[in-house]
Amino acid sequence: MGQSRVLVVAATHGNERNAPWLFQQWRAQPALLNTAGLALQLEIGNPDALAANRRYLDRDLNRCFTPELLGDPSRREREVQRARDLVATYGPNGTTPCAVALDLHSTTSAMGNSLVVYGRRPADLALAAGMQARLGLPVYLHEADAAQTGFLVERWPAGLVIEVGPVPQGLVSAVICRQTQLALEAALDTLAAAAAGRLRLPQGLQVHRHHGSLDLPRDADGTPGAALHPQRQHRDWTPLKAGDPLFWRADGSCERYQPDREGPDARWPVFINEAAYGEKGIALSLCTRERWPCEPGWAAALAALL
Amino acid sequence: MGQSRVLVVAATHGNERNAPWLFQQWRAQPALLNTAGLALQLEIGNPDALAANRRYLDRDLNRCFTPELLGDPSRREREVQRARDLVATYGPNGTTPCAVALDLHSTTSAMGNSLVVYGRRPADLALAAGMQARLGLPVYLHEADAAQTGFLVERWPAGLVIEVGPVPQGLVSAVICRQTQLALEAALDTLAAAAAGRLRLPQGLQVHRHHGSLDLPRDADGTPGAALHPQRQHRDWTPLKAGDPLFWRADGSCERYQPDREGPDARWPVFINEAAYGEKGIALSLCTRERWPCEPGWAAALAALL
Repeated sequence: MGQSRVLVVAATHGNERNAPWLFQQWRAQPALLNTAGLALQLEIGNPDALAANRRYLDRDLNRCFTPELLGDPSRREREVQRARDLVATYGPNGTTPCAVALDLHSTTSAMGNSLVVYGRRPADLALAAGMQARLGLPVYLHEADAAQTGFLVERWPAGLVIEVGPVPQGLVSAVICRQTQLALEAALDTLAAAAAGRLRLPQGLQVHRHHGSLDLPRDADGTPGAALHPQRQHRDWTPLKAGDPLFWRADGSCERYQPDREGPDARWPVFINEAAYGEKGIALSLCTRERWPCEPGWAAALAALL
Repeated sequence: MGQSRVLVVAATHGNERNAPWLFQQWRAQPALLNTAGLALQLEIGNPDALAANRRYLDRDLNRCFTPELLGDPSRREREVQRARDLVATYGPNGTTPCAVALDLHSTTSAMGNSLVVYGRRPADLALAAGMQARLGLPVYLHEADAAQTGFLVERWPAGLVIEVGPVPQGLVSAVICRQTQLALEAALDTLAAAAAGRLRLPQGLQVHRHHGSLDLPRDADGTPGAALHPQRQHRDWTPLKAGDPLFWRADGSCERYQPDREGPDARWPVFINEAAYGEKGIALSLCTRERWPCEPGWAAALAALL
């Protein structure tokens, strides 16, 4: 491992308060966290938003890490500036360089204890496969969505999001804290194994690959004319069947799921009724479930970073 | 009923979005709501906070209705001014006077479909008893808490809060919407019966009478040193026993419930881990469960207002 450090970020969204509360506990009692011998940088992603108990102040920090935004000096939103600061400090060419970023999030969706991976970088897939082998965590593989870009971990050589829910915004839940710590320790154990050249990956990695998102039905003025159907609430990772109730109108009628002709296998829903995604026009996202053989190069790519 | 109107308020807290969404649906299709023949005023309590998706901007609107705040022209917080506007418009001496206020709230606590009554005004107790007879709703009777005053419905001759949960802040949930509408229609049916002189109350009203609140254990700097214990999450209305786990520390230890010597029967918890109450220093409140005989004067007091 040498000088390499692992960046662990909490409160990239200021109203996701479980991970920052854990940071306080770990700082007061470092023995509480099993770091697997790694040197960690624990960093609050958006301290101003955390103080305000809001997801963000000017702009979603976890959509600010595009080269375009980072490199455009005319963009002065507070979160864009914070993104630049984080890269300047902890980025691979920063003053305290970190090779891997682990970004700790929570969600109002019933995602359970899960991982979000962006794209198909071999080192990320090694990390996800190692964590899935340890804890069986489901993986949401986000790619090819032009409307959602600029995620924090994409600016580090490797990294992923640990996403735990359901928990309301602004709330600390002991169960969510325990799941967050379990997943983080599995990540650190995987990284330590890779650094020591002893990471053994399972035969396959199961991923839920992003296909697209569905918005609520909206009236002409943009107002949602329906809500998520009660039968869909908290049913993340449960595949949809044609005709399943999807949206509920106040008159009791419902709109039903019809498979996308261009992606009929994209039946696995994630981020169902996430409170923060209303403004993004996302009621849920749909994935294909795929099993990929783990390639030998994945573990090597991760080890090379550490 | 004559000219008397019933004020129905949604989004007194701007991040409680189920009732305001229902308002939009009812305005588009008035037949969706059974008003029991009553003239309703549907009003958004805090439109600016609703637009910002925040509980409040300057100050909790539902703590602004004290005579002191309303009458002090030096207090210029936006919510204090909004409280004055609401009283000036819909108060008993307002331009569009309403006799009864029904304030629709949601909570991150598992309160189910419930009522909050402030004090012991006979007309309020009649309304609560009528709704409990119709739907069996539990009643939280809030009184004698000097730290929490200035609730909206206290400034109307009669009124109560319909409190539904659990639901995250900022989210519309079909189940929460249906429960909210059920409770509101039970309130309107009760009021219509009272106005027609045909309100028959049950023999008794079960109330959970406020005794006090417990805060999280806090470190010297005010930081919570523990979280709510997982065994307490979503266990509103379930009585505590001496020794039950109450708070959970990150090292796995717990603090246990010990009955208050001055209120050993105050074992019924409400508003457990409500996200908005962290800043108020309330992890949960404790109540005694009491059954009060319904008095004949209650229904008469309510009828006299209508």
